[in-house]
Amino acid sequence: VLDITHQVPPGDIRRGAAVLAVTAPQLPPAVHLAVVDPGVGTRRRAVALAAGESLLVGPDNGLLVPAAEALGGIRGAVHLSTQLHSPPIGAASASATFDGRDLFAPAAALLATGTALARAGQPVDPGSLVRLPERVLRLGDGVCWTEVVDVDRFGNCALSMAAADLDRIGASRGSVVTAELPDGSLAELTFLRTFADAGQQEPLIYLDSTGRPAIAVNCGSAARRLHLAEGDVVVLRCAPLAAR
Amino acid sequence: VLDITHQVPPGDIRRGAAVLAVTAPQLPPAVHLAVVDPGVGTRRRAVALAAGESLLVGPDNGLLVPAAEALGGIRGAVHLSTQLHSPPIGAASASATFDGRDLFAPAAALLATGTALARAGQPVDPGSLVRLPERVLRLGDGVCWTEVVDVDRFGNCALSMAAADLDRIGASRGSVVTAELPDGSLAELTFLRTFADAGQQEPLIYLDSTGRPAIAVNCGSAARRLHLAEGDVVVLRCAPLAAR
Amino acid sequence: VLDITHQVPPGDIRRGAAVLAVTAPQLPPAVHLAVVDPGVGTRRRAVALAAGESLLVGPDNGLLVPAAEALGGIRGAVHLSTQLHSPPIGAASASATFDGRDLFAPAAALLATGTALARAGQPVDPGSLVRLPERVLRLGDGVCWTEVVDVDRFGNCALSMAAADLDRIGASRGSVVTAELPDGSLAELTFLRTFADAGQQEPLIYLDSTGRPAIAVNCGSAARRLHLAEGDVVVLRCAPLAAR
Repeated sequence: VLDITHQVPPGDIRRGAAVLAVTAPQLPPAVHLAVVDPGVGTRRRAVALAAGESLLVGPDNGLLVPAAEALGGIRGAVHLSTQLHSPPIGAASASATFDGRDLFAPAAALLATGTALARAGQPVDPGSLVRLPERVLRLGDGVCWTEVVDVDRFGNCALSMAAADLDRIGASRGSVVTAELPDGSLAELTFLRTFADAGQQEPLIYLDSTGRPAIAVNCGSAARRLHLAEGDVVVLRCAPLAAR
Repeated sequence: VLDITHQVPPGDIRRGAAVLAVTAPQLPPAVHLAVVDPGVGTRRRAVALAAGESLLVGPDNGLLVPAAEALGGIRGAVHLSTQLHSPPIGAASASATFDGRDLFAPAAALLATGTALARAGQPVDPGSLVRLPERVLRLGDGVCWTEVVDVDRFGNCALSMAAADLDRIGASRGSVVTAELPDGSLAELTFLRTFADAGQQEPLIYLDSTGRPAIAVNCGSAARRLHLAEGDVVVLRCAPLAAR
Repeated sequence: VLDITHQVPPGDIRRGAAVLAVTAPQLPPAVHLAVVDPGVGTRRRAVALAAGESLLVGPDNGLLVPAAEALGGIRGAVHLSTQLHSPPIGAASASATFDGRDLFAPAAALLATGTALARAGQPVDPGSLVRLPERVLRLGDGVCWTEVVDVDRFGNCALSMAAADLDRIGASRGSVVTAELPDGSLAELTFLRTFADAGQQEPLIYLDSTGRPAIAVNCGSAARRLHLAEGDVVVLRCAPLAAR
């Protein structure tokens, strides 16, 4: 049993999904248990997915799908049987607010000890699984509208674009990219290889450890410095401010 | 060795006791080591308790007793011998400020590897153990004075009352309960099954995963929204505000 | 595999070095992997050090040296080979911003499974390793200038002085030591054995669990109460305020 993290902010499905999607593919085949579950106790489904050689267990709220795709795509899915619901020791029935303890962990343990996925519940059409909304990504003539998809504990802001999209707006290593921020202000980001290639407290755009563009501040927090949060839309143009 | 949590706020004996009391009964028989110890280095006793098939090791400041009761009651107790005090490697003597390292962890390791409780120290009368003060719980005619006994990392506020006490003030699922808060303000709490049965950011009262009443805010923090902290007294009446 | 902590603040090399230096000597011989790495992706070296019977793996930015000294001194050092750089699964090349995943953890795993240090990279002169700047410590006639070297999660402030330096300014258990703080204010600290020997919320100076002087506030945070941060210089005199 490995604890990957207990630091996902309460209820932040997007952050949980992002951490799971970058972590699971780097681990050996496993049963991955993930619980960020603001809809606990409602009719949202509890599911287990097969993806690659791994299984993913958690709520059907979008949390698991990006990891399943990063593991090679969904090979199968079940709606976990309510018969798996175990009341906590000393209680007559399972709680309405802690499926992590009463359903997901017992189901993950069953699967990890060899129970077949098909025996854990009824099959589910993968197409019916809840997916997180599509992120904003629009490319125009030398301009890109992109969304902050994840903010990590350093304050680095991952974007909903691919490395190739930086090419498409004409940015290459060393270019200055101007970012129009949600508060209407503008920031100059140099496209650099790593944090310390920027001056202290200077903002940069770089390819993060997943290979995708992200915004950082060297020795600081881009989220705090540029007032960015997950879900914000940023407009990028490959030109210094003076050229506008 | 399982790490349950390192997130109890510094010195918060009540929170440590609450986490331990809900966690220990759900785990297999074990030696539970718990250290929230603002009195470290003073004459407060260091103890080990037998409860159910488990042992509990820590300071005699109230931290262990609720868990021991949840495990079935205290079967025996010892005052840990000062001969168990191990100086850290490279030091001549144990510190006055880190019994977690110098006394409790070595004692727990000894007990976990088979040393009998009786050999870890002198017997202690369980009745002499420090207990946390009783919580406020007073029932009147359709009214209940109750205390916030625990605030978790989601901001959910557990109360010093039983599910049956909600019945006693006339509340059933769907009832509106008015809460008089410590700052004099009033809040309407609907008695619901789970968080998401309330509207986003709406407060509710519900039975938490231990089966006891608690106050929450759906997708938010009741502690922040209602300015509640552990130890606060809340007055509950089963009536909407308009009925007052 | 033991996780010591994931709570070092982002980029705080000093705090990482302090935690590692007090922890590593208390553990059995091991490969200690430590990554606080604001210079990731630049030409700062990645190193592994032999110290005592342990190995230390991480960036050459001062993080590892205090622990190596606490383990008995550096017996050998290598600059980790770039051939150890492993791209993450699914990527063509290692990232420029996550050597923890792509270089340090794989190198630590290699060393932990028996690869000789000499095969992990080119030898490095220990004298060439980056060291954290010396801390302020100046002793005058009954006065000591000392620096806050570490602030822990309780807000206790460790100082760059030895227990003997308190003797040198004339302080013994029970003495009142006046501290001139960076903001120009003065605080009276009683030299006590442990936190709870002071009144609630009262400041004290004591020998911490490493045996060195530190400033605390009983049941509170010295860092917050006295506005102290790592790197601050404090001037200590063995005299109550009234004697000035």
